[in-house]
Amino acid sequence: MIIIGEKINGAIPSIKQAIAERNEALIIERTLAQAAAGANFLDCAPSTATEIEYETMVWLIGLMQGATNVPLCIDSPNAKLLARVIEEGHLNKPGMVNSVNEEGDKCETIFPLIAGTPWEVVGLTCDQEGIPADPAKKVEIAKRIIDKAVQYGVSLNQLHIDPCVMALATMPSAMEDFAYCIQQIHNYAPEVKVTGAISNISFEMPARKYVNMNCMAYAIAVGLDSAIMDPCSQDMMGTIYACEALRMQDKGGRKYNRAYRKGLFGQKK
Amino acid sequence: MIIIGEKINGAIPSIKQAIAERNEALIIERTLAQAAAGANFLDCAPSTATEIEYETMVWLIGLMQGATNVPLCIDSPNAKLLARVIEEGHLNKPGMVNSVNEEGDKCETIFPLIAGTPWEVVGLTCDQEGIPADPAKKVEIAKRIIDKAVQYGVSLNQLHIDPCVMALATMPSAMEDFAYCIQQIHNYAPEVKVTGAISNISFEMPARKYVNMNCMAYAIAVGLDSAIMDPCSQDMMGTIYACEALRMQDKGGRKYNRAYRKGLFGQKK
Repeated sequence: MIIIGEKINGAIPSIKQAIAERNEALIIERTLAQAAAGANFLDCAPSTATEIEYETMVWLIGLMQGATNVPLCIDSPNAKLLARVIEEGHLNKPGMVNSVNEEGDKCETIFPLIAGTPWEVVGLTCDQEGIPADPAKKVEIAKRIIDKAVQYGVSLNQLHIDPCVMALATMPSAMEDFAYCIQQIHNYAPEVKVTGAISNISFEMPARKYVNMNCMAYAIAVGLDSAIMDPCSQDMMGTIYACEALRMQDKGGRKYNRAYRKGLFGQKK
Repeated sequence: MIIIGEKINGAIPSIKQAIAERNEALIIERTLAQAAAGANFLDCAPSTATEIEYETMVWLIGLMQGATNVPLCIDSPNAKLLARVIEEGHLNKPGMVNSVNEEGDKCETIFPLIAGTPWEVVGLTCDQEGIPADPAKKVEIAKRIIDKAVQYGVSLNQLHIDPCVMALATMPSAMEDFAYCIQQIHNYAPEVKVTGAISNISFEMPARKYVNMNCMAYAIAVGLDSAIMDPCSQDMMGTIYACEALRMQDKGGRKYNRAYRKGLFGQKK
Protein backbone atom coordinates (compact mmCIF):
# COMPACT_ATOMS: atom_id res chain seq x y z
CA MET A 1 0.00 0.00 0.00
CA ILE A 2 1.34 3.40 -1.05
CA ILE A 3 0.35 5.91 1.63
CA ILE A 4 -0.19 9.56 0.75
CA GLY A 5 -0.25 11.47 4.04
CA GLU A 6 -3.16 13.94 4.03
CA LYS A 7 -2.45 16.07 7.10
CA ILE A 8 -0.87 19.17 5.50
CA ASN A 9 -3.99 20.65 3.99
CA GLY A 10 -5.33 24.17 4.46
CA ALA A 11 -8.83 22.70 4.63
CA ILE A 12 -7.91 21.34 8.10
CA PRO A 13 -8.63 24.15 10.60
CA SER A 14 -5.32 23.86 12.52
CA ILE A 15 -3.34 23.95 9.24
CA LYS A 16 -5.43 26.85 7.96
CA GLN A 17 -4.50 28.76 11.09
CA ALA A 18 -0.83 27.74 10.82
CA ILE A 19 -0.80 29.05 7.24
CA ALA A 20 -2.42 32.34 8.27
CA GLU A 21 0.07 32.80 11.12
CA ARG A 22 3.04 31.37 9.19
CA ASN A 23 3.47 28.92 12.08
CA GLU A 24 6.43 26.89 10.84
CA ALA A 25 6.62 24.67 13.93
CA LEU A 26 3.19 23.11 13.41
CA ILE A 27 3.80 22.38 9.73
CA ILE A 28 7.16 20.76 10.55
CA GLU A 29 5.69 18.75 13.44
CA ARG A 30 2.88 17.31 11.27
CA THR A 31 5.34 16.62 8.48
CA LEU A 32 7.70 14.71 10.77
CA ALA A 33 4.87 12.76 12.40
CA GLN A 34 3.55 11.54 9.04
CA ALA A 35 7.05 10.66 7.83
CA ALA A 36 7.73 8.67 11.02
CA ALA A 37 4.42 6.83 10.60
CA GLY A 38 5.56 5.54 7.22
CA ALA A 39 3.94 7.83 4.62
CA ASN A 40 5.33 7.27 1.11
CA PHE A 41 4.26 10.73 -0.10
CA LEU A 42 3.16 13.81 1.84
CA ASP A 43 0.32 15.84 0.42
CA CYS A 44 1.01 19.58 0.32
CA ALA A 45 -2.29 21.35 -0.18
CA PRO A 46 -2.54 25.09 0.57
CA SER A 47 -6.34 25.16 0.02
CA THR A 48 -6.17 28.95 0.39
CA ALA A 49 -7.71 31.82 -1.54
CA THR A 50 -6.43 31.83 -5.13
CA GLU A 51 -4.35 35.02 -4.69
CA ILE A 52 -2.08 33.50 -2.04
CA GLU A 53 -2.08 29.84 -3.15
CA TYR A 54 1.23 29.99 -5.05
CA GLU A 55 3.22 31.73 -2.29
CA THR A 56 1.64 29.45 0.33
CA MET A 57 2.57 26.32 -1.58
CA VAL A 58 6.16 27.51 -2.05
CA TRP A 59 6.35 28.25 1.70
CA LEU A 60 4.92 24.82 2.61
CA ILE A 61 7.25 23.02 0.17
CA GLY A 62 10.27 24.73 1.72
CA LEU A 63 9.27 23.75 5.25
CA MET A 64 8.30 20.18 4.38
CA GLN A 65 11.41 19.50 2.28
CA GLY A 66 13.55 20.96 5.03
CA ALA A 67 12.06 18.51 7.54
CA THR A 68 11.93 15.22 5.62
CA ASN A 69 13.13 13.29 2.60
CA VAL A 70 9.67 11.85 1.93
CA PRO A 71 8.61 13.06 -1.54
CA LEU A 72 5.79 15.60 -1.68
CA CYS A 73 2.44 15.37 -3.41
CA ILE A 74 1.70 18.92 -4.53
CA ASP A 75 -2.04 19.40 -4.36
CA SER A 76 -4.11 22.09 -6.04
CA PRO A 77 -7.19 22.28 -8.27
CA ASN A 78 -5.12 24.68 -10.42
CA ALA A 79 -3.05 22.65 -12.89
CA LYS A 80 -1.25 25.79 -14.14
CA LEU A 81 -0.06 26.51 -10.62
CA LEU A 82 1.15 22.90 -10.20
CA ALA A 83 3.00 23.14 -13.52
CA ARG A 84 4.61 26.45 -12.50
CA VAL A 85 5.79 25.03 -9.17
CA ILE A 86 7.43 22.08 -10.96
CA GLU A 87 8.92 24.15 -13.78
CA GLU A 88 10.41 26.72 -11.41
CA GLY A 89 12.26 23.91 -9.62
CA HIS A 90 10.84 24.38 -6.12
CA LEU A 91 10.94 20.63 -5.49
CA ASN A 92 14.29 19.06 -4.63
CA LYS A 93 13.14 15.68 -5.95
CA PRO A 94 10.30 14.31 -8.07
CA GLY A 95 7.07 13.55 -6.23
CA MET A 96 3.40 13.43 -7.12
CA VAL A 97 0.99 15.87 -8.78
CA ASN A 98 -2.50 15.97 -7.25
CA SER A 99 -4.54 16.23 -9.40
CA VAL A 100 -5.68 16.25 -12.98
CA ASN A 101 -9.13 15.35 -14.26
CA GLU A 102 -11.18 15.67 -17.42
CA GLU A 103 -12.28 19.25 -16.77
CA GLY A 104 -10.60 21.83 -19.02
CA ASP A 105 -6.97 21.22 -20.06
CA LYS A 106 -5.52 19.83 -16.83
CA CYS A 107 -4.20 16.60 -18.35
CA GLU A 108 -2.87 18.58 -21.30
CA THR A 109 -1.03 20.90 -18.91
CA ILE A 110 0.54 18.27 -16.65
CA PHE A 111 1.10 15.17 -18.79
CA PRO A 112 3.71 16.64 -21.20
CA LEU A 113 5.60 17.99 -18.21
CA ILE A 114 5.94 14.65 -16.43
CA ALA A 115 6.24 12.27 -19.40
CA GLY A 116 9.55 10.45 -19.16
CA THR A 117 10.20 11.68 -15.58
CA PRO A 118 9.77 9.83 -12.26
CA TRP A 119 6.87 12.15 -11.29
CA GLU A 120 3.60 10.45 -10.46
CA VAL A 121 0.17 11.97 -10.95
CA VAL A 122 -3.33 11.53 -9.54
CA GLY A 123 -6.25 11.63 -11.98
CA LEU A 124 -9.72 12.26 -10.55
CA THR A 125 -12.77 10.77 -12.24
CA CYS A 126 -14.57 14.02 -12.85
CA ASP A 127 -15.11 16.29 -15.83
CA GLN A 128 -16.77 19.62 -16.68
CA GLU A 129 -20.05 18.21 -15.32
CA GLY A 130 -18.51 17.38 -11.93
CA ILE A 131 -18.22 13.97 -10.27
CA PRO A 132 -20.70 11.53 -11.82
CA ALA A 133 -22.80 9.50 -9.39
CA ASP A 134 -22.81 6.51 -11.78
CA PRO A 135 -19.67 4.39 -11.28
CA ALA A 136 -19.76 3.29 -14.94
CA LYS A 137 -19.35 6.97 -15.91
CA LYS A 138 -16.44 7.29 -13.48
CA VAL A 139 -14.77 4.36 -15.19
CA GLU A 140 -15.37 5.99 -18.61
CA ILE A 141 -13.63 9.16 -17.42
CA ALA A 142 -10.79 7.06 -15.95
CA LYS A 143 -10.34 5.40 -19.35
CA ARG A 144 -10.18 8.78 -21.09
CA ILE A 145 -7.49 9.95 -18.64
CA ILE A 146 -5.55 6.70 -19.11
CA ASP A 147 -5.76 6.97 -22.92
CA LYS A 148 -4.56 10.56 -22.74
CA ALA A 149 -1.63 9.57 -20.51
CA VAL A 150 -0.59 7.02 -23.14
CA GLN A 151 -0.90 9.67 -25.90
CA TYR A 152 1.41 12.00 -24.00
CA GLY A 153 3.96 9.29 -23.29
CA VAL A 154 3.20 9.15 -19.56
CA SER A 155 3.98 5.63 -18.34
CA LEU A 156 0.90 4.00 -16.81
CA ASN A 157 2.74 3.15 -13.61
CA GLN A 158 3.13 6.91 -13.04
CA LEU A 159 -0.65 7.25 -12.92
CA HIS A 160 -2.97 6.88 -9.91
CA ILE A 161 -6.70 7.10 -10.61
CA ASP A 162 -8.85 8.36 -7.73
CA PRO A 163 -12.47 7.31 -8.32
CA CYS A 164 -13.75 9.91 -5.79
CA VAL A 165 -15.07 7.88 -2.85
CA MET A 166 -18.57 9.11 -1.94
CA ALA A 167 -20.30 9.20 1.46
CA LEU A 168 -22.21 6.07 2.41
CA ALA A 169 -24.72 8.16 4.40
CA THR A 170 -25.96 9.86 1.22
CA MET A 171 -25.08 7.15 -1.34
CA PRO A 172 -25.71 3.64 0.06
CA SER A 173 -23.80 2.09 -2.86
CA ALA A 174 -20.66 4.18 -2.21
CA MET A 175 -18.47 1.23 -1.18
CA GLU A 176 -19.73 -1.14 -3.86
CA ASP A 177 -19.23 1.60 -6.45
CA PHE A 178 -15.67 2.20 -5.22
CA ALA A 179 -14.93 -1.54 -5.39
CA TYR A 180 -16.43 -1.66 -8.91
CA CYS A 181 -14.23 1.23 -10.06
CA ILE A 182 -11.07 -0.33 -8.59
CA GLN A 183 -11.73 -3.58 -10.43
CA GLN A 184 -12.84 -2.04 -13.74
CA ILE A 185 -9.87 0.33 -13.88
CA HIS A 186 -7.48 -2.55 -13.23
CA ASN A 187 -9.22 -4.63 -15.89
CA TYR A 188 -8.66 -1.84 -18.40
CA ALA A 189 -5.07 -1.06 -17.38
CA PRO A 190 -3.46 -3.29 -14.75
CA GLU A 191 -0.38 -1.04 -14.43
CA VAL A 192 -2.47 1.97 -13.37
CA LYS A 193 -2.68 2.42 -9.61
CA VAL A 194 -6.05 3.05 -8.03
CA THR A 195 -6.12 5.37 -5.04
CA GLY A 196 -8.78 6.98 -2.88
CA ALA A 197 -9.50 9.32 0.00
CA ILE A 198 -10.86 6.59 2.24
CA SER A 199 -12.35 8.71 5.02
CA ASN A 200 -14.87 10.29 2.62
CA ILE A 201 -16.89 7.08 2.98
CA SER A 202 -17.91 7.76 6.59
CA PHE A 203 -18.88 11.42 6.25
CA GLU A 204 -21.76 12.25 8.64
CA MET A 205 -21.70 8.80 10.26
CA PRO A 206 -20.89 8.12 13.93
CA ALA A 207 -17.84 6.11 15.05
CA ARG A 208 -16.27 6.81 11.65
CA LYS A 209 -13.23 4.66 12.32
CA TYR A 210 -15.17 1.41 11.89
CA VAL A 211 -16.50 2.48 8.50
CA ASN A 212 -13.08 3.78 7.42
CA MET A 213 -11.20 0.66 8.54
CA ASN A 214 -13.63 -1.66 6.81
CA CYS A 215 -13.71 0.47 3.67
CA MET A 216 -9.91 0.14 3.59
CA ALA A 217 -10.05 -3.63 4.19
CA TYR A 218 -12.64 -4.12 1.43
CA ALA A 219 -10.75 -1.87 -1.00
CA ILE A 220 -7.48 -3.73 -0.32
CA ALA A 221 -9.30 -7.00 -1.01
CA VAL A 222 -10.32 -5.81 -4.47
CA GLY A 223 -6.97 -4.30 -5.37
CA LEU A 224 -6.53 -0.76 -3.99
CA ASP A 225 -2.90 0.32 -4.59
CA SER A 226 -2.60 3.58 -2.71
CA ALA A 227 -4.59 5.69 -0.29
CA ILE A 228 -4.86 9.32 0.69
CA MET A 229 -5.14 9.03 4.46
CA ASP A 230 -3.80 9.90 7.88
CA PRO A 231 -0.72 7.71 8.42
CA CYS A 232 -0.76 8.68 12.10
CA SER A 233 -4.08 6.84 12.53
CA GLN A 234 -3.19 3.65 14.40
CA ASP A 235 -6.52 2.17 13.36
CA MET A 236 -5.85 2.65 9.66
CA MET A 237 -2.24 1.50 9.87
CA GLY A 238 -3.20 -1.52 11.99
CA THR A 239 -5.82 -2.38 9.38
CA ILE A 240 -3.35 -2.17 6.48
CA TYR A 241 -0.72 -4.29 8.27
CA ALA A 242 -3.33 -6.84 9.41
CA CYS A 243 -4.76 -7.14 5.89
CA GLU A 244 -1.28 -7.77 4.49
CA ALA A 245 -0.63 -10.47 7.10
CA LEU A 246 -4.03 -12.13 6.60
CA ARG A 247 -3.58 -12.13 2.81
CA MET A 248 -0.08 -13.65 2.97
CA GLN A 249 1.63 -10.62 1.49
CA ASP A 250 3.33 -10.54 4.89
CA LYS A 251 3.74 -14.21 5.70
CA GLY A 252 3.01 -15.04 9.31
CA GLY A 253 2.88 -11.35 10.23
CA ARG A 254 6.60 -10.49 10.42
CA LYS A 255 6.07 -6.99 9.02
CA TYR A 256 3.00 -6.66 11.24
CA ASN A 257 5.02 -7.51 14.34
CA ARG A 258 7.82 -5.14 13.34
CA ALA A 259 5.39 -2.26 12.74
CA TYR A 260 3.83 -2.94 16.14
CA ARG A 261 7.22 -2.83 17.84
CA LYS A 262 7.96 0.45 16.04
CA GLY A 263 4.79 1.81 17.69
CA LEU A 264 2.86 2.38 14.45
CA PHE A 265 -0.31 0.83 15.94
CA GLY A 266 -1.61 -0.90 19.04
CA GLN A 267 -0.13 1.68 21.41
CA LYS A 268 -1.93 3.70 24.04
CA LYS A 269 -2.67 7.16 22.68
CA MET B 1 -24.40 -12.38 11.18
CA ILE B 2 -25.48 -14.87 13.83
CA ILE B 3 -23.48 -14.15 16.99
CA ILE B 4 -22.67 -16.91 19.46
CA GLY B 5 -21.47 -15.22 22.64
CA GLU B 6 -18.35 -16.99 23.93
CA LYS B 7 -17.93 -15.49 27.39
CA ILE B 8 -19.40 -18.23 29.58
CA ASN B 9 -16.60 -20.75 29.26
CA GLY B 10 -14.70 -22.45 32.07
CA ALA B 11 -11.51 -22.03 30.02
CA ILE B 12 -11.68 -18.29 30.85
CA PRO B 13 -9.95 -17.84 34.24
CA SER B 14 -12.64 -15.61 35.81
CA ILE B 15 -15.37 -18.07 34.77
CA LYS B 16 -13.31 -21.00 35.99
CA GLN B 17 -13.10 -19.29 39.37
CA ALA B 18 -16.81 -18.42 39.36
CA ILE B 19 -17.60 -22.09 38.69
CA ALA B 20 -15.31 -23.24 41.50
CA GLU B 21 -16.87 -20.77 43.94
CA ARG B 22 -20.40 -21.16 42.56
CA ASN B 23 -20.41 -17.37 42.05
CA GLU B 24 -23.85 -16.88 40.55
CA ALA B 25 -23.55 -13.09 40.26
CA LEU B 26 -20.63 -13.20 37.83
CA ILE B 27 -22.30 -15.76 35.56
CA ILE B 28 -25.50 -13.72 35.50
CA GLU B 29 -23.63 -10.46 34.87
CA ARG B 30 -21.74 -11.90 31.87
CA THR B 31 -24.92 -13.49 30.55
CA LEU B 32 -26.84 -10.21 30.71
CA ALA B 33 -23.99 -8.23 29.17
CA GLN B 34 -23.79 -10.55 26.16
CA ALA B 35 -27.56 -10.57 25.74
CA ALA B 36 -27.68 -6.76 25.82
CA ALA B 37 -24.87 -6.61 23.24
CA GLY B 38 -27.03 -8.54 20.79
CA ALA B 39 -25.85 -12.17 21.00
CA ASN B 40 -28.18 -14.58 19.17
CA PHE B 41 -26.97 -17.60 21.18
CA LEU B 42 -24.99 -17.81 24.41
CA ASP B 43 -22.34 -20.49 24.65
CA CYS B 44 -22.50 -22.50 27.87
CA ALA B 45 -19.21 -24.36 28.27
CA PRO B 46 -18.25 -25.77 31.67
CA SER B 47 -14.76 -26.83 30.46
CA THR B 48 -14.29 -28.52 33.83
CA ALA B 49 -12.90 -31.91 34.86
CA THR B 50 -15.07 -34.71 33.45
CA GLU B 51 -16.50 -35.74 36.85
CA ILE B 52 -18.18 -32.38 37.47
CA GLU B 53 -18.98 -31.34 33.90
CA TYR B 54 -22.60 -32.49 33.94
CA GLU B 55 -23.54 -30.86 37.24
CA THR B 56 -21.68 -27.70 36.25
CA MET B 57 -23.51 -27.47 32.95
CA VAL B 58 -26.89 -27.96 34.63
CA TRP B 59 -25.98 -25.23 37.16
CA LEU B 60 -24.88 -22.83 34.36
CA ILE B 61 -28.00 -23.54 32.29
CA GLY B 62 -30.21 -22.73 35.25
CA LEU B 63 -28.50 -19.42 35.91
CA MET B 64 -28.31 -18.37 32.28
CA GLN B 65 -31.92 -19.29 31.48
CA GLY B 66 -33.02 -17.46 34.60
CA ALA B 67 -31.30 -14.29 33.42
CA THR B 68 -32.16 -14.13 29.71
CA ASN B 69 -34.38 -15.42 26.93
CA VAL B 70 -31.45 -15.73 24.50
CA PRO B 71 -31.17 -19.41 23.52
CA LEU B 72 -28.15 -21.29 24.81
CA CYS B 73 -25.45 -23.11 22.92
CA ILE B 74 -24.52 -26.06 25.12
CA ASP B 75 -20.83 -26.74 24.63
CA SER B 76 -18.91 -29.88 25.50
CA PRO B 77 -16.52 -32.28 23.76
CA ASN B 78 -18.72 -35.05 25.23
CA ALA B 79 -21.64 -35.72 22.86
CA LYS B 80 -23.22 -38.17 25.32
CA LEU B 81 -23.35 -35.44 27.96
CA LEU B 82 -24.90 -33.00 25.48
CA ALA B 83 -27.51 -35.62 24.54
CA ARG B 84 -28.30 -36.31 28.20
CA VAL B 85 -28.76 -32.59 28.96
CA ILE B 86 -31.20 -32.25 26.06
CA GLU B 87 -33.09 -35.49 26.79
CA GLU B 88 -33.52 -34.68 30.47
CA GLY B 89 -35.19 -31.41 29.49
CA HIS B 90 -32.88 -28.96 31.25
CA LEU B 91 -33.35 -26.43 28.47
CA ASN B 92 -36.54 -24.36 28.44
CA LYS B 93 -36.28 -23.81 24.69
CA PRO B 94 -34.33 -25.24 21.76
CA GLY B 95 -30.85 -23.79 21.21
CA MET B 96 -27.61 -25.01 19.72
CA VAL B 97 -25.40 -28.06 20.30
CA ASN B 98 -21.63 -27.34 20.23
CA SER B 99 -20.23 -29.58 18.89
CA VAL B 100 -20.08 -32.73 16.82
CA ASN B 101 -17.22 -33.81 14.56
CA GLU B 102 -16.05 -36.91 12.72
CA GLU B 103 -14.33 -38.46 15.73
CA GLY B 104 -16.16 -41.45 17.20
CA ASP B 105 -19.97 -41.45 17.13
CA LYS B 106 -20.70 -37.81 17.95
CA CYS B 107 -22.82 -37.14 14.85
CA GLU B 108 -24.59 -40.48 15.40
CA THR B 109 -25.39 -39.47 18.99
CA ILE B 110 -26.67 -35.95 18.32
CA PHE B 111 -28.21 -35.99 14.83
CA PRO B 112 -31.12 -38.39 15.54
CA LEU B 113 -31.94 -36.35 18.63
CA ILE B 114 -32.27 -33.01 16.82
CA ALA B 115 -33.70 -34.16 13.47
CA GLY B 116 -37.07 -32.50 12.93
CA THR B 117 -36.56 -30.09 15.86
CA PRO B 118 -35.55 -26.40 15.85
CA TRP B 119 -32.20 -27.27 17.50
CA GLU B 120 -29.10 -26.13 15.64
CA VAL B 121 -25.75 -27.88 15.78
CA VAL B 122 -22.09 -26.99 15.20
CA GLY B 123 -19.93 -29.50 13.33
CA LEU B 124 -16.14 -29.14 13.64
CA THR B 125 -13.90 -30.21 10.77
CA CYS B 126 -11.86 -32.74 12.71
CA ASP B 127 -11.79 -36.51 12.99
CA GLN B 128 -9.95 -39.23 14.90
CA GLU B 129 -6.66 -37.83 13.54
CA GLY B 130 -7.37 -34.36 14.93
CA ILE B 131 -7.70 -31.10 12.99
CA PRO B 132 -6.10 -31.43 9.55
CA ALA B 133 -3.75 -28.63 8.50
CA ASP B 134 -4.80 -29.01 4.86
CA PRO B 135 -7.97 -27.00 4.16
CA ALA B 136 -9.01 -29.46 1.44
CA LYS B 137 -9.11 -32.18 4.12
CA LYS B 138 -11.20 -29.91 6.34
CA VAL B 139 -13.68 -29.51 3.49
CA GLU B 140 -13.77 -33.31 3.01
CA ILE B 141 -14.66 -33.77 6.67
CA ALA B 142 -17.28 -31.01 6.40
CA LYS B 143 -18.84 -32.87 3.46
CA ARG B 144 -18.96 -36.10 5.46
CA ILE B 145 -20.72 -34.29 8.34
CA ILE B 146 -23.15 -32.66 5.90
CA ASP B 147 -23.92 -35.99 4.20
CA LYS B 148 -24.49 -37.60 7.58
CA ALA B 149 -26.87 -34.81 8.62
CA VAL B 150 -28.91 -35.45 5.47
CA GLN B 151 -28.95 -39.20 6.24
CA TYR B 152 -30.33 -38.55 9.72
CA GLY B 153 -32.96 -36.13 8.47
CA VAL B 154 -31.29 -33.07 9.99
CA SER B 155 -32.22 -30.05 7.88
CA LEU B 156 -29.12 -28.37 6.46
CA ASN B 157 -30.14 -24.98 7.81
CA GLN B 158 -29.83 -26.46 11.32
CA LEU B 159 -26.14 -27.11 10.68
CA HIS B 160 -23.21 -24.75 11.25
CA ILE B 161 -19.80 -26.00 10.12
CA ASP B 162 -16.81 -24.60 12.03
CA PRO B 163 -13.64 -25.06 9.93
CA CYS B 164 -11.40 -24.54 12.99
CA VAL B 165 -9.65 -21.20 12.41
CA MET B 166 -5.90 -21.63 12.97
CA ALA B 167 -3.34 -19.10 14.26
CA LEU B 168 -1.73 -16.91 11.61
CA ALA B 169 1.49 -16.75 13.66
CA THR B 170 2.09 -20.47 13.19
CA MET B 171 0.19 -21.01 9.93
CA PRO B 172 0.63 -18.07 7.53
CA SER B 173 -2.17 -19.36 5.29
CA ALA B 174 -4.69 -19.50 8.18
CA MET B 175 -6.95 -16.74 6.81
CA GLU B 176 -6.79 -17.87 3.19
CA ASP B 177 -7.55 -21.42 4.34
CA PHE B 178 -10.53 -20.21 6.37
CA ALA B 179 -11.81 -18.23 3.37
CA TYR B 180 -11.33 -21.29 1.15
CA CYS B 181 -13.30 -23.48 3.56
CA ILE B 182 -16.17 -20.97 3.80
CA GLN B 183 -16.50 -20.85 0.02
CA GLN B 184 -16.07 -24.57 -0.61
CA ILE B 185 -18.60 -25.54 2.06
CA HIS B 186 -21.13 -23.10 0.60
CA ASN B 187 -20.46 -24.43 -2.88
CA TYR B 188 -21.26 -27.93 -1.64
CA ALA B 189 -24.29 -26.98 0.43
CA PRO B 190 -25.47 -23.36 0.29
CA GLU B 191 -28.00 -23.88 3.12
CA VAL B 192 -25.29 -24.92 5.60
CA LYS B 193 -24.04 -22.06 7.77
CA VAL B 194 -20.32 -21.58 8.20
CA THR B 195 -19.14 -20.35 11.58
CA GLY B 196 -15.80 -19.82 13.30
CA ALA B 197 -14.02 -18.78 16.47
CA ILE B 198 -12.53 -15.66 14.93
CA SER B 199 -10.07 -14.72 17.67
CA ASN B 200 -8.06 -17.93 17.13
CA ILE B 201 -6.51 -16.20 14.12
CA SER B 202 -4.50 -13.71 16.21
CA PHE B 203 -3.12 -16.10 18.84
CA GLU B 204 0.37 -14.98 19.93
CA MET B 205 0.24 -11.77 17.88
CA PRO B 206 0.33 -8.24 19.32
CA ALA B 207 -2.58 -5.78 19.01
CA ARG B 208 -4.86 -8.75 18.32
CA LYS B 209 -7.91 -6.60 17.68
CA TYR B 210 -6.63 -5.49 14.25
CA VAL B 211 -6.10 -9.07 13.14
CA ASN B 212 -9.46 -10.17 14.58
CA MET B 213 -11.42 -7.29 13.02
CA ASN B 214 -9.89 -7.84 9.61
CA CYS B 215 -10.33 -11.60 9.81
CA MET B 216 -14.02 -10.94 10.48
CA ALA B 217 -14.27 -8.45 7.61
CA TYR B 218 -12.59 -10.85 5.18
CA ALA B 219 -14.70 -13.79 6.35
CA ILE B 220 -17.92 -11.76 5.99
CA ALA B 221 -16.83 -10.84 2.46
CA VAL B 222 -16.60 -14.50 1.47
CA GLY B 223 -19.82 -15.56 3.17
CA LEU B 224 -19.36 -16.25 6.90
CA ASP B 225 -22.82 -16.79 8.43
CA SER B 226 -22.14 -16.94 12.16
CA ALA B 227 -19.30 -16.35 14.58
CA ILE B 228 -18.26 -17.53 18.00
CA MET B 229 -17.05 -14.28 19.54
CA ASP B 230 -17.30 -11.72 22.31
CA PRO B 231 -20.42 -9.67 21.54
CA CYS B 232 -19.27 -7.12 24.15
CA SER B 233 -16.26 -6.26 21.97
CA GLN B 234 -17.09 -2.88 20.48
CA ASP B 235 -14.40 -3.42 17.87
CA MET B 236 -15.93 -6.65 16.61
CA MET B 237 -19.49 -5.34 16.70
CA GLY B 238 -18.45 -2.09 14.99
CA THR B 239 -16.76 -4.19 12.31
CA ILE B 240 -19.85 -6.32 11.71
CA TYR B 241 -22.21 -3.33 11.50
CA ALA B 242 -19.78 -1.40 9.27
CA CYS B 243 -19.40 -4.38 6.91
CA GLU B 244 -23.17 -4.69 6.61
CA ALA B 245 -23.50 -0.97 5.83
CA LEU B 246 -20.63 -0.99 3.31
CA ARG B 247 -22.06 -4.07 1.55
CA MET B 248 -25.58 -2.60 1.30
CA GLN B 249 -27.15 -5.23 3.53
CA ASP B 250 -27.86 -2.19 5.72
CA LYS B 251 -28.59 0.51 3.17
CA GLY B 252 -27.06 3.84 4.06
CA GLY B 253 -26.15 2.61 7.54
CA ARG B 254 -29.53 2.86 9.31
CA LYS B 255 -28.87 -0.27 11.40
CA TYR B 256 -25.30 0.96 11.97
CA ASN B 257 -26.55 4.29 13.31
CA ARG B 258 -29.15 2.58 15.52
CA ALA B 259 -26.57 0.20 16.98
CA TYR B 260 -24.28 3.15 17.66
CA ARG B 261 -27.06 5.00 19.49
CA LYS B 262 -27.74 1.85 21.52
CA GLY B 263 -24.10 2.02 22.64
CA LEU B 264 -23.03 -1.25 21.01
CA PHE B 265 -19.85 0.35 19.63
CA GLY B 266 -18.02 3.67 19.38
CA GLN B 267 -18.48 4.45 23.07
CA LYS B 268 -15.78 5.32 25.59
CA LYS B 269 -14.90 2.21 27.58
